[in-house]
Amino acid sequence: MSKFSYSILGTGALGGFYGAKLQKAGLNVHFLLKSDYEYVAKSGLIVESKDGDFTLPQVNAYNDVKKMPQSDVVVIALKTTQNHLLPQMLPPLVKDDGVVLVLQNGLGVEEEVAKIVPNVSIISGLCFLCSNKVGAGHICHLDYGQITLGEYASDYNPTGITDNMQHIANDFANAGISIELAEDLLLGRWKKLVWNITYNGLSVILNARTDELMSYVHTRKLVEQLMYEVVAGSKSCGRIIPDSFVQTMLDYTVKMKPYRTSMKIDYDERRPLEVEAIFGNPLRKAQAAGVYLPQISCVYQQLKFLDEKIRVRTQENA
Amino acid sequence: MSKFSYSILGTGALGGFYGAKLQKAGLNVHFLLKSDYEYVAKSGLIVESKDGDFTLPQVNAYNDVKKMPQSDVVVIALKTTQNHLLPQMLPPLVKDDGVVLVLQNGLGVEEEVAKIVPNVSIISGLCFLCSNKVGAGHICHLDYGQITLGEYASDYNPTGITDNMQHIANDFANAGISIELAEDLLLGRWKKLVWNITYNGLSVILNARTDELMSYVHTRKLVEQLMYEVVAGSKSCGRIIPDSFVQTMLDYTVKMKPYRTSMKIDYDERRPLEVEAIFGNPLRKAQAAGVYLPQISCVYQQLKFLDEKIRVRTQENA
Repeated sequence: MSKFSYSILGTGALGGFYGAKLQKAGLNVHFLLKSDYEYVAKSGLIVESKDGDFTLPQVNAYNDVKKMPQSDVVVIALKTTQNHLLPQMLPPLVKDDGVVLVLQNGLGVEEEVAKIVPNVSIISGLCFLCSNKVGAGHICHLDYGQITLGEYASDYNPTGITDNMQHIANDFANAGISIELAEDLLLGRWKKLVWNITYNGLSVILNARTDELMSYVHTRKLVEQLMYEVVAGSKSCGRIIPDSFVQTMLDYTVKMKPYRTSMKIDYDERRPLEVEAIFGNPLRKAQAAGVYLPQISCVYQQLKFLDEKIRVRTQENA
Repeated sequence: MSKFSYSILGTGALGGFYGAKLQKAGLNVHFLLKSDYEYVAKSGLIVESKDGDFTLPQVNAYNDVKKMPQSDVVVIALKTTQNHLLPQMLPPLVKDDGVVLVLQNGLGVEEEVAKIVPNVSIISGLCFLCSNKVGAGHICHLDYGQITLGEYASDYNPTGITDNMQHIANDFANAGISIELAEDLLLGRWKKLVWNITYNGLSVILNARTDELMSYVHTRKLVEQLMYEVVAGSKSCGRIIPDSFVQTMLDYTVKMKPYRTSMKIDYDERRPLEVEAIFGNPLRKAQAAGVYLPQISCVYQQLKFLDEKIRVRTQENA
């Protein structure tokens, strides 16, 4: 089987890590950069990883999509807060029979992508990755790294396991990235939201790490209530998450090292929060099915307030 | 009509203000103090007020309830977080045909008092007061000051206007304190919670003043949703708050000067929060009537986390 070529949109903690792993495995990879462009074009990428450090002294670096060649797979590794850029980025980059691989959190991104490039295959990867960008072209991979792949079809109808999914899974597995295949992308996305909605939201609002949220009795209870609202949201889309999955997420989080969520890191760094992808879109999906999720709605409105206050302050300081 | 004598339990921003006004009007008032006892016993009280400054160079000051005489009216002007002290304080102080006047926020305090001193008349005053203690025996009255009085009967059955209510109302009115009489205490308490639950909760959790909560579209909406949950809680107790009251509270708050709520001040000063009186008891009252208030419950659990974290930190620093 011939290997795919890859373009990585967003060479940060996530896109930089997976892209570097693919290039290291011998694949043809192109990286889109913004602030780090000059440094990376000259000096390449450094990856410190719990699985072994490595450097790529030379990479294909770009600061403009118009200069990039078309690739078999265009990987969206931006934060969802940058998705207003996709209508300009995607059309020149994707091939007619190409693949867009969405490595983003939340819900509803595939529908946006399908509107922009209607005839491509859209595959999503739900990433369980703990990594940070610690300097220009310098990524520090702390833990995890596995990806669950699923293919998008209109209205999130389950696709089963497709050829493109298997092809990408092979490329990633050969690069040492652990892959699972999901037959039903929407179910996978809702399952990931069980954790993401709960801990991302409360960690920002209450200025707390996961271990604090789990060790105080009232937040421990609120965590569980929020998780069950996500389960209700999933059910409103016809996707059943068993109670045992909630229990697994609770147990897993109690056993985790004290963890600062990605949204909390964004908040502390005064970056825009992915509130719409992770909270707004799931709420609207449930609402469209006639299901109201009051506690997630409460957390959503609190986060919107905090996010908008950051943006106002950031503009004032600009 | 002979005038009542008064004992003020808690000579802070609220108890000190009203007690000083009563003494200034010629009534016999006794003040229980803690940290300010020595200063006030020697130098009295200073009240700076928008209605006119005054000093009381000599007051009846005590640091121990056992040294206080019995009074016709024992005024509870402590924070509800101190109510575990009431079983020792009240029995020696109240007369058999006496009155306990509760000047506290929230719900359910009267039931506690009735258990401790079953045969006395319990009257509650819902205070709309903006004042601070700015130094030992030194109170600064910024705005408002009116009190709504209602009498408690078993199970919060409405009492109408009672003789004791009118007697206390006369004493307060003669001291220049604006008084309204409520025939149904429980309705009055729920109405006050419409404002108190909403703004106290969100101001602490989101580190925000009232004007910020009202000017951002998402918190403006959450404010309204929380208010309607209080209305639903009130309804669960058979007390109907009209929609027009919610609208009045919203309009009133938009027009207010930017305001830091009392719970936010407590939080900023690292004092215990009145979470149980203002949130826990109303939630339990509604729950007992089979009504679940999910967004108030979310805010309650968030506040409990923040309150318990303060207490842990305060103990660590002690």
